[in-house]
Amino acid sequence: MPDRFGYYQNELYLQGYGGTKPPFSTDATKLEDSAAEVLDPEAFSYVAGGAGSGATMRANREAFDRWKLVPRMLTDATERELDTTVLGTAMPAPVLLAPVGVQSIVHPEAESATARAASALGVPMVMSTASSTSIEDVAQASGEGPRWFQLYWPGDPDVCGSILARARAAGFSTLVVTLDTWTLGWRPCDLDAGYLPFLRGLGMAVAFSDPAFRQLLDKPPEQDTPTAVLRWISMITGTDRHWSALPFLREHWDGPIVLKGIQHVDDARRAVDAGMDGIVVSNHGGRQVDGAAASLEVLPEIATAVGDRIEVLFDSGVRTGADVLKALALGAKAVLLGRPYVYGLALGGEDGVRHVLRSVLADLDLTMALSGHRSPADLTAAALRRA
Amino acid sequence: MPDRFGYYQNELYLQGYGGTKPPFSTDATKLEDSAAEVLDPEAFSYVAGGAGSGATMRANREAFDRWKLVPRMLTDATERELDTTVLGTAMPAPVLLAPVGVQSIVHPEAESATARAASALGVPMVMSTASSTSIEDVAQASGEGPRWFQLYWPGDPDVCGSILARARAAGFSTLVVTLDTWTLGWRPCDLDAGYLPFLRGLGMAVAFSDPAFRQLLDKPPEQDTPTAVLRWISMITGTDRHWSALPFLREHWDGPIVLKGIQHVDDARRAVDAGMDGIVVSNHGGRQVDGAAASLEVLPEIATAVGDRIEVLFDSGVRTGADVLKALALGAKAVLLGRPYVYGLALGGEDGVRHVLRSVLADLDLTMALSGHRSPADLTAAALRRA
Amino acid sequence: MPDRFGYYQNELYLQGYGGTKPPFSTDATKLEDSAAEVLDPEAFSYVAGGAGSGATMRANREAFDRWKLVPRMLTDATERELDTTVLGTAMPAPVLLAPVGVQSIVHPEAESATARAASALGVPMVMSTASSTSIEDVAQASGEGPRWFQLYWPGDPDVCGSILARARAAGFSTLVVTLDTWTLGWRPCDLDAGYLPFLRGLGMAVAFSDPAFRQLLDKPPEQDTPTAVLRWISMITGTDRHWSALPFLREHWDGPIVLKGIQHVDDARRAVDAGMDGIVVSNHGGRQVDGAAASLEVLPEIATAVGDRIEVLFDSGVRTGADVLKALALGAKAVLLGRPYVYGLALGGEDGVRHVLRSVLADLDLTMALSGHRSPADLTAAALRRA
Amino acid sequence: MPDRFGYYQNELYLQGYGGTKPPFSTDATKLEDSAAEVLDPEAFSYVAGGAGSGATMRANREAFDRWKLVPRMLTDATERELDTTVLGTAMPAPVLLAPVGVQSIVHPEAESATARAASALGVPMVMSTASSTSIEDVAQASGEGPRWFQLYWPGDPDVCGSILARARAAGFSTLVVTLDTWTLGWRPCDLDAGYLPFLRGLGMAVAFSDPAFRQLLDKPPEQDTPTAVLRWISMITGTDRHWSALPFLREHWDGPIVLKGIQHVDDARRAVDAGMDGIVVSNHGGRQVDGAAASLEVLPEIATAVGDRIEVLFDSGVRTGADVLKALALGAKAVLLGRPYVYGLALGGEDGVRHVLRSVLADLDLTMALSGHRSPADLTAAALRRA
Repeated sequence: MPDRFGYYQNELYLQGYGGTKPPFSTDATKLEDSAAEVLDPEAFSYVAGGAGSGATMRANREAFDRWKLVPRMLTDATERELDTTVLGTAMPAPVLLAPVGVQSIVHPEAESATARAASALGVPMVMSTASSTSIEDVAQASGEGPRWFQLYWPGDPDVCGSILARARAAGFSTLVVTLDTWTLGWRPCDLDAGYLPFLRGLGMAVAFSDPAFRQLLDKPPEQDTPTAVLRWISMITGTDRHWSALPFLREHWDGPIVLKGIQHVDDARRAVDAGMDGIVVSNHGGRQVDGAAASLEVLPEIATAVGDRIEVLFDSGVRTGADVLKALALGAKAVLLGRPYVYGLALGGEDGVRHVLRSVLADLDLTMALSGHRSPADLTAAALRRA
Repeated sequence: MPDRFGYYQNELYLQGYGGTKPPFSTDATKLEDSAAEVLDPEAFSYVAGGAGSGATMRANREAFDRWKLVPRMLTDATERELDTTVLGTAMPAPVLLAPVGVQSIVHPEAESATARAASALGVPMVMSTASSTSIEDVAQASGEGPRWFQLYWPGDPDVCGSILARARAAGFSTLVVTLDTWTLGWRPCDLDAGYLPFLRGLGMAVAFSDPAFRQLLDKPPEQDTPTAVLRWISMITGTDRHWSALPFLREHWDGPIVLKGIQHVDDARRAVDAGMDGIVVSNHGGRQVDGAAASLEVLPEIATAVGDRIEVLFDSGVRTGADVLKALALGAKAVLLGRPYVYGLALGGEDGVRHVLRSVLADLDLTMALSGHRSPADLTAAALRRA
Repeated sequence: MPDRFGYYQNELYLQGYGGTKPPFSTDATKLEDSAAEVLDPEAFSYVAGGAGSGATMRANREAFDRWKLVPRMLTDATERELDTTVLGTAMPAPVLLAPVGVQSIVHPEAESATARAASALGVPMVMSTASSTSIEDVAQASGEGPRWFQLYWPGDPDVCGSILARARAAGFSTLVVTLDTWTLGWRPCDLDAGYLPFLRGLGMAVAFSDPAFRQLLDKPPEQDTPTAVLRWISMITGTDRHWSALPFLREHWDGPIVLKGIQHVDDARRAVDAGMDGIVVSNHGGRQVDGAAASLEVLPEIATAVGDRIEVLFDSGVRTGADVLKALALGAKAVLLGRPYVYGLALGGEDGVRHVLRSVLADLDLTMALSGHRSPADLTAAALRRA
Repeated sequence: MPDRFGYYQNELYLQGYGGTKPPFSTDATKLEDSAAEVLDPEAFSYVAGGAGSGATMRANREAFDRWKLVPRMLTDATERELDTTVLGTAMPAPVLLAPVGVQSIVHPEAESATARAASALGVPMVMSTASSTSIEDVAQASGEGPRWFQLYWPGDPDVCGSILARARAAGFSTLVVTLDTWTLGWRPCDLDAGYLPFLRGLGMAVAFSDPAFRQLLDKPPEQDTPTAVLRWISMITGTDRHWSALPFLREHWDGPIVLKGIQHVDDARRAVDAGMDGIVVSNHGGRQVDGAAASLEVLPEIATAVGDRIEVLFDSGVRTGADVLKALALGAKAVLLGRPYVYGLALGGEDGVRHVLRSVLADLDLTMALSGHRSPADLTAAALRRA
């Protein structure tokens, strides 16, 4: 049924007619407000906050407002086909769940709940290295659902190799390597609260369950967690890699490799030259560099420069169906959705994630329909107008 | 008396001197605030809300602010003639009441009150297919007043033909076909409230009173309303037409036909090629596609492209006399006023609609006068300046 | 003493050191807030409000923000000479008090208090036809101070001639003819309150004391005031003049004539062609046409077009010394200050007007000094930068 | 340890893990709010306020938002070297403490606390002529720390010479001559409060301890302070110098001389021609001229015009690490940080200043790292994008 996403609209109206309102809002802004009410303030700030003065987060949102859709009429867009295939992964719509670590700070079922919700819809989940749940457990929760693995690149090659091997073994098809977070950005909200969940041993499931990492520690799992935490943190942060290091990943991963955090057209070209399979144009949702360009602002020139030599994905600032459509029209093959689904998780676990995801997809489907587009392939910059 | 609209100013001042203030504000923003106080929250949100994040509604308003009037002095604009004729309909000013459905949710007299108010001023009312009042009852309330009929295009040709025939028989002169709402936009306010008035059988008067529709149901009117509602909704929504379907309308309507919802210059050209008589440049007041271009932003290039080969009307975002003047100067032959009169209806029934309409027309008349223009025909882009 | 205006700064600091704070703020925004507290709401709205949605008032302020001063250093601006001569009137700084009618609604001493304050500083006052005080009484209060007369042009030539003759006889040197208010703008604040002070016989002193007007009424002064009011209002409003009517004024006024309300470069050129002596680039402080261009936005092209063939004055939106400086740099010979002094009058009568005027002049003087300019003649567009 | 500044991030997180939050925020906006709570309102307004309507302060902040960083990936920025040398002064990062007078109004230890904090980090402090602490006492508190001296140029040559000689003798290496404050700007906040700390004898330590000034007064120190204050104020304010006066400074200062307050490219060129060693592109944090151009807006053209013929420094509006980076990328060799450290002083004396300084430097270090830059020398306009 090609319009199954848009059908969520009918479902909600019919439930409303029957006296049942949706448990959480269909509006991303209200979701954030609701999440702020139920979450521990530190956890909420960790999720919602950004680098420095928050300028990059604001820029991300403002950039979407500078591009306007120009709907077309009488195009016979009755039947939409939103499905697409990115790097061999078929997905029902050009939307993935962005990698978000340490989801246990917002809900006890954490990444497992997220994986179940994504899987039920067939939407790919990009699992974070900093998950609260092990690779194998996420894979199990994910079931038949498509899954990609995000890497924070550990310094020790054995540990890195071990993690990658486990991810491949667990059915993760594509590797997403985060380039923009080799050290943590300056985040006043978290600093003022003295809050870094990893120091409390949270978000360490991938590491703690890794045999190579355990061997390196040379200690039984039940002992010496603080040491393990610090060892892992030091392995992940503080060291910037160089383009010359990329072959290591290719040696240890036989699937597609995507570089996440590209913001400059020359870096995108270099990713092509390095033989990468994809990039994610992203500023990490404004969490790393304050005062940075909106991710959407740099997307068009990057997409134009690399053409079809590499798959271009996008994240940072996506909140609505129109946002997805705009990113696609400006050259993205698919977009990654981040904070909104985490708010859904906070508010309702698996159900919350599914509600948020269905809402965004319904919004996307209807916005496609009403602007006269039948499939993502129809979308070009001609669908937009610069304000 | 050519300045009868502006005279409402004197009337209000004289009433004030006599101790009587106007029952509702002369300011559209305050009207909305007042309506929010008297209406059921769901009904208010249904009227005031828009698609997605509300970006299109905001864009509509901001677009008016980017064009500035440059008043001319000593032009002898004492005598204004605001009257005009659009597609054979004479009207005292280039303003019509936009089609707004299901007016019973804001006032029990609904479209009849609106029709009486419009008729008293000679302002054309565009009756919605989704009215709470039947075609014949609106016609009766409208009396000698000019009236156009807006069509949500039913899937069944017999039902469509029947409705059009009734509208013609009831003295509706011009057909306005809404293109941008073949499925409903994603509206978080309504979705969060689970509120769609049609599911409650509201706004169904045209359908329920239609013999062809009743015959299709094969049930007596008093039975099975839920089925009728769902049948009607399925007939109206979910199917996008193609340009090739337009001849059907021409076959069933011997008056002028206007396409409403045009936002792209190529669609405007295509309307000309399809032999249509008019278009309404409109984004449905921001209710359908989130993140869309302001209706006023696309007006100038559309007006330029089609020239005088087709009548260009305009709506979306009009709140003040200056807004009307700007749209006219940018190429519209007339504008449709929407939400403000519905707030007037909510606050005071027929009197409220008349007050709002007189206020906008007075504002228009005085703004014409004080910027040095005697008639709509004087208005060109030379009256404006881009900010 | 060339820096006497800036010296007000020292005076205020020394008073503060002695324990005395200024009775009212030196900040125009705070003055408005304070005036809102002491005035009757209707009177405050009448003064502070504007046409329609208030867009023109906002545009006026925003326009100042788009031009930025670029201060120059080490220019030896120790000694400033702010005095100038406009149309034969010497003034200590290029600032006049704009014509504001019906000042009795904010303070019982009304225009007399204003005249005394202006006179004490040598600043020209432009007296309004709609004053609460007669021509002769304002002249007396003004003493040796320079004074100009603003005309709302009465329909009856004898009455008009009589008023002009009285103004000349009373020592008013220059005639300022308001073009933009031959009918009143649409002002929702006042309309909603049903408040027009003139209907209550306020602001009628010039008319009521005029023998030609009294003769026209053919009634003794103590009788039939409502009739007189309506007669006067009908004489002033509703009729737009044409350029061809200007010779009448020249016949009845042997001093300089200035046209107030020019907003289009072609109208400015036409004023030159009509042999006028000056223009005021003005949109009446946003009180007449909603959605109009900022007065400051149209100033540069007008000043460039007319060159030195006519004196160019400016008003609408001036609040600070930097505003004055910007208008001068963009081509104005002098500026008219409006609402701020009325707030001063509301708050403290003559003292209040003097305080506000001294504050603006001190601010101007210091801003001139610190941006490196010794006299208004130094100011060109080179002092500014477009933001 | 090249990343010692960024390490403050770890320190704060580890303290937080141990249960200790930072005493004050790491966010400049929150620091200001906190300072507003602890300070006397007059003192707070004196520090936080600006000239006129505050437009220049707002412009300063908005200008930073118009330039966006475009982070580069995989540049191997692990090891940063932020240290630089400006006019012979080595500093660990291109950041100095801007001259701020009369610090006793926010903390009893005033400039001494500031000097100790700066010295501990090796960051140069620019001591103000208007300090609450004598030259010799600041020098002592500064210890081995680098120190520059800011001059408000006294009218009496002997007093000026004496002060300069004392500063040189006390180890101040570089002279920063403030050009933009030869008279005080119009500051409504302070004027409304009647608050000028100097009139109360505050911020007079340099003058009162100066033998030449005392000799001029011909009175023993314990007598006649009001006279001394007024004499000093009159010596400092009211007289604008000319470029031709600069040789006097060169005669009395054998170290580098920097002109502070340059905002026009021609003045920058003239500083080169006058043989100056450096300039500070600055509008005094918006405290002097209202409605002025943002300091950052004029920086690029000034830096381009003077090239490497003179050292270009920058201040006005710097709040975050990204701000510093942007100013460096647009041509500044180093930036001066003002209000934020004063808020730190207000909140926690020496500790507060150190915390603020470490926060800004950590933010700078991490922003450099994550945008892919290893040293200030790497930064060019290519790191930025105009929004």
